[in-house]
Amino acid sequence: MAELKGAAIFGQSGGPTSVINSSAAGVFIEALSQGNITAVYGAANGIKGMLEEDFYDIGKEDMHELELMKTTPSSLLGSVRYKLKDADVDDTDYKRLLEVFKKYDIRYFFYNGGNDSMDTCNKVSKYMQKVGYDCRVIGVPKTIDNDLYGTDHCPGYASAAKYIATSIMEVYLDARVYDTPMVCIFEIMGRNAGWLTAASALASYKGYGPDLIYLPEKTFSMDKFLADVKRKYEENNGKVIVAVSEGCHTEDGKYIPELGANLATDSFGHAQLGGAASILANAVKNAGICSKVRGIELSLLQRCATHCGSKTDMEESFNAGREAVKAACSGMTDMMVGFKRADKDEYECEYVLLPLSSVANTEKKVPDEWITNDGTFVSEEFVKYALPLIQGETPIAREDGLPRFSRLAKVSAKK
Amino acid sequence: MAELKGAAIFGQSGGPTSVINSSAAGVFIEALSQGNITAVYGAANGIKGMLEEDFYDIGKEDMHELELMKTTPSSLLGSVRYKLKDADVDDTDYKRLLEVFKKYDIRYFFYNGGNDSMDTCNKVSKYMQKVGYDCRVIGVPKTIDNDLYGTDHCPGYASAAKYIATSIMEVYLDARVYDTPMVCIFEIMGRNAGWLTAASALASYKGYGPDLIYLPEKTFSMDKFLADVKRKYEENNGKVIVAVSEGCHTEDGKYIPELGANLATDSFGHAQLGGAASILANAVKNAGICSKVRGIELSLLQRCATHCGSKTDMEESFNAGREAVKAACSGMTDMMVGFKRADKDEYECEYVLLPLSSVANTEKKVPDEWITNDGTFVSEEFVKYALPLIQGETPIAREDGLPRFSRLAKVSAKK
Repeated sequence: MAELKGAAIFGQSGGPTSVINSSAAGVFIEALSQGNITAVYGAANGIKGMLEEDFYDIGKEDMHELELMKTTPSSLLGSVRYKLKDADVDDTDYKRLLEVFKKYDIRYFFYNGGNDSMDTCNKVSKYMQKVGYDCRVIGVPKTIDNDLYGTDHCPGYASAAKYIATSIMEVYLDARVYDTPMVCIFEIMGRNAGWLTAASALASYKGYGPDLIYLPEKTFSMDKFLADVKRKYEENNGKVIVAVSEGCHTEDGKYIPELGANLATDSFGHAQLGGAASILANAVKNAGICSKVRGIELSLLQRCATHCGSKTDMEESFNAGREAVKAACSGMTDMMVGFKRADKDEYECEYVLLPLSSVANTEKKVPDEWITNDGTFVSEEFVKYALPLIQGETPIAREDGLPRFSRLAKVSAKK
Repeated sequence: MAELKGAAIFGQSGGPTSVINSSAAGVFIEALSQGNITAVYGAANGIKGMLEEDFYDIGKEDMHELELMKTTPSSLLGSVRYKLKDADVDDTDYKRLLEVFKKYDIRYFFYNGGNDSMDTCNKVSKYMQKVGYDCRVIGVPKTIDNDLYGTDHCPGYASAAKYIATSIMEVYLDARVYDTPMVCIFEIMGRNAGWLTAASALASYKGYGPDLIYLPEKTFSMDKFLADVKRKYEENNGKVIVAVSEGCHTEDGKYIPELGANLATDSFGHAQLGGAASILANAVKNAGICSKVRGIELSLLQRCATHCGSKTDMEESFNAGREAVKAACSGMTDMMVGFKRADKDEYECEYVLLPLSSVANTEKKVPDEWITNDGTFVSEEFVKYALPLIQGETPIAREDGLPRFSRLAKVSAKK
């Protein structure tokens, strides 16, 4: 079974992270070393590039540049958000994919992404099995949201978490320089799962973090929020730091920016719209709690800040890519590489394989028992969980004092 | 003249930076080693702490914690924005200061800040001279804005510049992952001088930076801005990155957020207010140039990101503190420590003394000849100027993978 000769293709999908290219490096470097893999292709913009025969010959890349991918943020091959239809409903894309796979003798399919991407993997795998085309399909996990089912954590999460905790610690000091009141509200990514917002608690654990943390796992109420801030304001002599997930929403499903129109008006009587942070900052001002309020949206910065990345994350992401190739070469298919925490005191990550069907489209949220203080903080269990993941600093390459990103030659593989 | 025995006091003033504590460490460590300095005090919240006898006995601090100040952002002693009245108009504060100085035998006054703080220094110095109280006054420069007159550059600038350039390089890659159009607008600090916004050009110099850069030195026009973005959008296949200073304003003195009400309305017809980045993002959307526009405000992050600081900046800031003490001990007074770039190919910083009166309240702006392309970019001269300043990485101490900030004992010196 293990003997399957043919080419390998790899694609990046969904939102980028600080370490998605580290997984790509892992796949490429391992695949190039495998005797059964006859060619290694990198797809431009994920499944889209595969459908359009737009992919690169990774064998033509300089090994040094492939190594530099480990510390280059974002998706160097280009990403895509494209949901394959069910093959039963419309098999056009699948037929085209099969045609391309046959033309390039592609027998190994590696796909790097989150829930939706694992769905793509699963569908491709099922179709190839159905039509009897021998192709091994392995998913490589990736998401700053950390919401993939079945794995202890996801590549990309820890680097974003480290950046968030570090930045909040720094701003904590900044927000305390004057002996006058100030409220600071951080808006953090994560539409449905609060893992990233919870990472702000690592800053609190060090003594320089938020007083209040709001995750999307709990229903958001503006009245309760304002009461919470007011209470902390009084307790802390006018200094309050808040971390709030962009995914927080009210009982009737309204996200915070949607609450703006009813709450905050400017001096002309116009409603103020914006991100969650600025809406909440205005609400705190308008409620008369504090006049100096800063809303800080960590925006795209948090998902590509390799300069403050976790070395543990970078290495695990690289290994996840390698493990995917090794698994495929040893005969496995229809799996995603997952992480299992070794059952011992010192942190150790074991690589396991999870059936794609169990991972696709399932979200893992922050456990209810880790959310404390009436939904305004997380427990020490969370800190114990997250702290080992952010250890070590990503050793980024520099030139002129600035990052030296990988520069791929991107030689077209088109036949 | 050099023999003046007495205590030294040091205060931090104005907005914090990544390296203001490094200058404090320089002052403290040097002062503790000087035989003529009998006690070293750190004032809580600058001049305010001096007036209120609220200061710390630095001799009681652990040397390791003083060393850690080099890599701890923000103003650890606390800062203040307090403008002394002219002594001719109201000398209450000066009399009180003299009283405190006499009580603690303070003969050395060091003050760390920007334009306003040098004004404070100058006024204190003049008053002490007038009343015949022998006290040496030396200013230590500090401002991320880099707008102090007479010095090649200012402590704090380069670290903020390095963070800005690095972050924009990372987001540049992030903003290019999908093969769909996207406009990204960065809002950068600097009310009257564009040095920090210009630093975004360092990212462009590496190939990953803004296409358009707007400094407050040039008048801002929304029509021209939209035309510029549209042109770049067409040239660059729908990918545009913009860096804009928070200080940009129109010919009639309106800042960008003030332009919002006339320009952007939401789906309810309400005006959208916010920071410059979100106002411009809405304007680009509303003008039909691009539907996917991100406004990113670097906010407080940019001035306290020691985790991405310049080692050159950290060292020069430390040395500026030491030089201030050495100068005072050698008999100098009424001066600010300044930086002079050595006249040679390789970058070298020389420490000079500048009369306080020439520095106070004068702003240094980006030279007109360095602003190019019809006010939308900066020249190579700027890059040559700024690049040496951001070299080296601040070696921050860590604990559990997160910054280990200095923890001062802050023992009260109150007699």
